[in-house]
Amino acid sequence: MDKKIFKFAKKMCRHAKKIFFKYFDTENNGGHYKVDNTIVTKADTEINEYLIKQVRKHFPDCSVDGEEVDYGKSKKVWICDPVDGTAMYARHIQNAVFSLALVEDGVPTFGCILDPFVDKMYYAFKGEGAFINGKPTRVNEVGWEYMKTIGQVDVWPYMDWDIVPCLKHLWKKSYPISIGSVAHACALVASGALAYCLFPATIEKHVDVAAAKIIVEEAGGIVTDFDGNDQRYDTHINGVIMTNKVLNKDILDIVKKYAKKVDREEKKD
Amino acid sequence: MDKKIFKFAKKMCRHAKKIFFKYFDTENNGGHYKVDNTIVTKADTEINEYLIKQVRKHFPDCSVDGEEVDYGKSKKVWICDPVDGTAMYARHIQNAVFSLALVEDGVPTFGCILDPFVDKMYYAFKGEGAFINGKPTRVNEVGWEYMKTIGQVDVWPYMDWDIVPCLKHLWKKSYPISIGSVAHACALVASGALAYCLFPATIEKHVDVAAAKIIVEEAGGIVTDFDGNDQRYDTHINGVIMTNKVLNKDILDIVKKYAKKVDREEKKD
Repeated sequence: MDKKIFKFAKKMCRHAKKIFFKYFDTENNGGHYKVDNTIVTKADTEINEYLIKQVRKHFPDCSVDGEEVDYGKSKKVWICDPVDGTAMYARHIQNAVFSLALVEDGVPTFGCILDPFVDKMYYAFKGEGAFINGKPTRVNEVGWEYMKTIGQVDVWPYMDWDIVPCLKHLWKKSYPISIGSVAHACALVASGALAYCLFPATIEKHVDVAAAKIIVEEAGGIVTDFDGNDQRYDTHINGVIMTNKVLNKDILDIVKKYAKKVDREEKKD
Repeated sequence: MDKKIFKFAKKMCRHAKKIFFKYFDTENNGGHYKVDNTIVTKADTEINEYLIKQVRKHFPDCSVDGEEVDYGKSKKVWICDPVDGTAMYARHIQNAVFSLALVEDGVPTFGCILDPFVDKMYYAFKGEGAFINGKPTRVNEVGWEYMKTIGQVDVWPYMDWDIVPCLKHLWKKSYPISIGSVAHACALVASGALAYCLFPATIEKHVDVAAAKIIVEEAGGIVTDFDGNDQRYDTHINGVIMTNKVLNKDILDIVKKYAKKVDREEKKD
């Protein structure tokens, strides 16, 4: 474990938590809609600004790729989603997390996700296993066991792949939920609470899942894009499938067979 | 407001919260599966037992209809879902609430939902409006505004209506989530966070939504079954649709047109 990185990440989590609760219950927590109709809050902006300041100070050789503001240009990048699940956070729903990854030449080498509402920090360094608050964690080993198999299937108006046809095949043998934050859902795959997570996003959405990618893999899970390939996390992605080992092949088959790329022109029909 | 009822409900909420946190983070919080493959935890059982004791003492003319244990036989019934969202709770996910309603001859006259994780008590008496921690609350007024319109579409292996075909028509113009607790989602309809909630359940599921029914209605929302009818909450239900006023007709149309009754024999195909 790189102690400097870990200390830095813990400091960032502590600060992010403070900002989460500074605005969570305020009537106007600053939610405004971006061009792509996703939402940004005051907490997003403040956490991002703080991160940039801290990276400049402690990791001058790194750049920052944030949900909103970027900083620098380097092969070593801190990728941050200050509030993943902003639509929930802005509505005072406790499904939102802080996500931070160190990505070197496209590959996450460290990732952490903080769930401030239950005080859980999920994290992993490459090759060293995944942890929740210092305790090792593993993905679960369930197969298709109906209500015992819970997964996340995220669908929204601007998604790039239509995975509703996959849902037709998933709900009869598992319980598909969608809690409003992909990073939170992936952390729950790493904790063994969920068995899978499907995220049908592409453009700019590497930010949401860079930390989750390494945490789920280090917890023994499998992470690929919608074609079943490994992918870089310093550029756009091609959907993400995160699963335990048992279900990976089945879920990849379902996605390959039934997920359909959305024609952006037709999306709002 | 009936002060005796309100005092009793607050006491129950306080006690339920204590029990929620007594077990929430314990490794084995007692989750075991019932015949219908839904889960029961130690918290469910303890809250139910406490409720029965308290009803016997303070409302000897009432009976209790709990998720697990029933008590007495009366036209005035305390209907309780001690932990709605048990599958989440058992996995240490903070989407679970305590739900309690007083139902007189099938009609809820009081309902409360406690979200212990953010300390919010949603409640309503017939004809007196809906409140969150003492502050009046109203449903929102959004129409089909893409990411600004969030609703809950709950699907699971043992559901009685297949509403996945409805989802095909909902995701393009709204953001359908599924947070694992129908009572929590309905409370969020009452708070204005969500615009709608679809619950495709029938047998014994009146328990999950009796409190939500009156809270959403008193917050200005509309509550019907899947055929668009009002329904009793002292017996099985026929699906529940809870919406704001703007979307009610559209959503009812979608459900009537696309939701399909599930043939129990075919469900596991």
